[in-house]
Amino acid sequence: MITGKNYIGNQQSAKGNKTYKTFNPQLNVENDNIFTEATSEEIYEAVNLATKAFKTFKSVSGKRKAVFLNAIADEILALDDELIKTYCMESGLPEGRAKGERGRTVFQLRSFADLVKEGSWVEASIDTAQPDREPLSKPDLRKLLIPLGPVVVFGASNFPLAYSTAGGDTAAALAAGCPVIVKSHPMHAGTGELVASAIIRAAEKAGMPNGVFSNLNSSGINVGEQLVKHPGIKAVGFTGSINGGRALYNMAAQREEPIPVFAEMGSINPVVIMPNALKNRAESLAKTYAGSITLGTGQFCTNPGLLLAIKSDSLSHFVSELASEIIKIEPSCMLHPNIIGAYEKNTSKMASQQGLSVVADYKNKLQTNYARQVITTVEGKTFLENTNLHQEVFGPFSLVVQCEDVNQLETIISRLEGQLTATLIADNEAQNYSNVIAGLQNRVGRLIFNGVPTGVEVCPSMVHGGPYPASTDSRFTAVGIHSIKRWVRPFSFQDWPNELLPDELKNENPLKISRHVDGVHTNQKIN
Amino acid sequence: MITGKNYIGNQQSAKGNKTYKTFNPQLNVENDNIFTEATSEEIYEAVNLATKAFKTFKSVSGKRKAVFLNAIADEILALDDELIKTYCMESGLPEGRAKGERGRTVFQLRSFADLVKEGSWVEASIDTAQPDREPLSKPDLRKLLIPLGPVVVFGASNFPLAYSTAGGDTAAALAAGCPVIVKSHPMHAGTGELVASAIIRAAEKAGMPNGVFSNLNSSGINVGEQLVKHPGIKAVGFTGSINGGRALYNMAAQREEPIPVFAEMGSINPVVIMPNALKNRAESLAKTYAGSITLGTGQFCTNPGLLLAIKSDSLSHFVSELASEIIKIEPSCMLHPNIIGAYEKNTSKMASQQGLSVVADYKNKLQTNYARQVITTVEGKTFLENTNLHQEVFGPFSLVVQCEDVNQLETIISRLEGQLTATLIADNEAQNYSNVIAGLQNRVGRLIFNGVPTGVEVCPSMVHGGPYPASTDSRFTAVGIHSIKRWVRPFSFQDWPNELLPDELKNENPLKISRHVDGVHTNQKIN
Repeated sequence: MITGKNYIGNQQSAKGNKTYKTFNPQLNVENDNIFTEATSEEIYEAVNLATKAFKTFKSVSGKRKAVFLNAIADEILALDDELIKTYCMESGLPEGRAKGERGRTVFQLRSFADLVKEGSWVEASIDTAQPDREPLSKPDLRKLLIPLGPVVVFGASNFPLAYSTAGGDTAAALAAGCPVIVKSHPMHAGTGELVASAIIRAAEKAGMPNGVFSNLNSSGINVGEQLVKHPGIKAVGFTGSINGGRALYNMAAQREEPIPVFAEMGSINPVVIMPNALKNRAESLAKTYAGSITLGTGQFCTNPGLLLAIKSDSLSHFVSELASEIIKIEPSCMLHPNIIGAYEKNTSKMASQQGLSVVADYKNKLQTNYARQVITTVEGKTFLENTNLHQEVFGPFSLVVQCEDVNQLETIISRLEGQLTATLIADNEAQNYSNVIAGLQNRVGRLIFNGVPTGVEVCPSMVHGGPYPASTDSRFTAVGIHSIKRWVRPFSFQDWPNELLPDELKNENPLKISRHVDGVHTNQKIN
Repeated sequence: MITGKNYIGNQQSAKGNKTYKTFNPQLNVENDNIFTEATSEEIYEAVNLATKAFKTFKSVSGKRKAVFLNAIADEILALDDELIKTYCMESGLPEGRAKGERGRTVFQLRSFADLVKEGSWVEASIDTAQPDREPLSKPDLRKLLIPLGPVVVFGASNFPLAYSTAGGDTAAALAAGCPVIVKSHPMHAGTGELVASAIIRAAEKAGMPNGVFSNLNSSGINVGEQLVKHPGIKAVGFTGSINGGRALYNMAAQREEPIPVFAEMGSINPVVIMPNALKNRAESLAKTYAGSITLGTGQFCTNPGLLLAIKSDSLSHFVSELASEIIKIEPSCMLHPNIIGAYEKNTSKMASQQGLSVVADYKNKLQTNYARQVITTVEGKTFLENTNLHQEVFGPFSLVVQCEDVNQLETIISRLEGQLTATLIADNEAQNYSNVIAGLQNRVGRLIFNGVPTGVEVCPSMVHGGPYPASTDSRFTAVGIHSIKRWVRPFSFQDWPNELLPDELKNENPLKISRHVDGVHTNQKIN
């Protein structure tokens, strides 16, 4: 049952007088539940509880953390229909998507459970002593990864489950041993509260300390700002707009003790289509990309917002095919009136830029909050001259840049901002475009061959992140088990007594994890 | 031969009209060589060359980078007496230290050469495709670490070789595939130029692109500021004061594209001495710590500036022993008149703080630029009330805090700023102080048992870094092979053709490196 209250650790609390409701964009009405925004007192209490919880949670064994993470997954599944209904009511997204995203969320939690249960993720490294070394004896040094401390996670508007309350950031931080305070996304506060209740039940069942998790309601920037500035908070995870992510990054950097912010922000995910591919399969590519551009009403951070190709008859044919394919696709609902409002404003702004042509624009009358698919084209020279054309339009929009030649294509790539992904579409010709490929690699976190950027596989080899502004720290990924590295730091023990070392570093290797011992990768004990 | 010019890539250049000299603190005279500060034009040229060099250097094989790094080591050794003499003339440090530090520098370069020659450091991870997976086929994803781009390294005043021109930051960045521009430290510009000449000779012999390395002279903050703000620079390494490091961090965070700054800054390296240890071996501990506090005239970042213990007769005895031992040690020269000036100012400021007692203070007349060893004591309560007492005094100074009881000791530890190290001195009693140990772990990067913090072993299990302000990013170490991770980011290829993948990710594993393939650690090829 949704109460509209915050979770301050295990306790529900609603001390404030600022309230808000969520919105059903399909029905174009407010939902019934009333959510109470967290007060400063509640924020401080959540941070204090998290700080206390950290003292024990940081040393909880991997096996027990795995029980906790799996219990969260179980409790989320137990929410069953209520969760799916609330999700759809608050996002306008269809039930199939809700269930798919729930599956992804549960998979992520179980992946991190497996990771910490096995235990080798701490990258244990041991260099044994050499007392007789000349000129100086060598001490015994043993290193492992330890959690940073309490982490704030901001829920994402476009993934109410997989990148929100119990999403990738939370799962990774809890797996690392960091208590988590979620700043709930106001567009899906009910979904957030339900998932928070699942986490709290799991924490109680698994015997985790009170304060290991809190969920704070907030309709504006105030709660998030107080959290990020609180000296008890040691890191921040965010998925959303460049403006939002950059504001948090600036706040964190200006603290007396600066803290890391991992913000996964906007991206236009350039797709480069090579001449042979255009010639051989303009029609099928147009169909594929019409689907990718409109997937989830274009509300994926990997949405292909920029298509780059060299001018040719084949390109003209592709553009007209893409224009006709995309308007065949049934329009769909956006997440919230504010999101559709921004989409309409941004598409109009784009359409008004000099030299830009709108080649496909769904003209039929649309249901309220439904998005019109838009395809536009521009000359390469114009694109280079006007950086407004480089900005993301969040929604089912894409811009085809018609380049004069490969040199102009390379120049355009070199001028792009950092991106999550780039895609190369090529038919037996990629080997001729090594500068294009190198240029793309320099600007992105992931390169895709002959596919679409939408769809982010959750696996160890995934990189979801990239040069700024794709993310605020390209040295980490936001998806996959290695995203745990955002929330940990290396720590060394020197000449420490074996019995006082954490199990991961003890001579006898009681956890039987993989370690580097004197440079050799082994799961053996040390004699 | 020292020319006083900058290295803009392979070319020597001195277009500016601002010049300066280095200083011999032992003789208290300026050295003869005249150094010309880099101009804005030269700075831009260095960044442009580095940006061009990156295009090829990022793909240079590990074997060829190893040849380059080993050649740097060889060329540094070939500088022989001229380097050692210049080092001593510009630092006031003795010949033995110069040779020791040269050995460390060469060892670091060769360690990184071995690392990149072997090749597994890129953390190659491969998840093979599952075309038949339901409901969606799984793509092939392959990940590795790639270099960030051109890096700026700031030379450190206190390690003219090991943390300067060809020091740990430079060696790690070059190993990663990042071109390096060094902002030479003005106190040892001659040492810097000689080492730069060695790097340039090595780059030419190893066939590295022009611009892979530049060395810029600078007597103030202007050159460093222009470098950090230049959009071509992608990361910064710094070792020095909190004020200096924080200023660079702020500049980098305020850029349109923020970049990572790894600054290793101040630390007072708390040492906690437990009651049994004080009772059993106050005299030997006093002797050991008198040595550690004065080592290198107290100019190590791991210098023990804070000793914490619970009040007892044994503690009083230890304090008087420490006081008498430290004035037996022959005073030594500091690096520069500015450094000794700051030391004298800071010790006077400390001595004037209410409640602080100076118990040992070398009273004999000293040679110019030589430092007086100072030991001070204060009550735990006073220390808690006055955060001026928590500040680093760079030099042979230490403060003994006499705590009322273990609770006050724990409180003090919890209030300390982030530190590089903490040391626990205990005799069969550590198991009784788990809160003390947990509290220390929370504030530092490395915990030492029954030793001294001075001495930073270069090995994979070392962590040199820690919570702010020990460093600006505790998620990385500045020492050891893993310091390479500061300068790289993960990158994924999705469904990429085998022949176009980098060798590290090809099916046939031509480099025979260790990789994670579908979750299994292996050096086998993929069939």
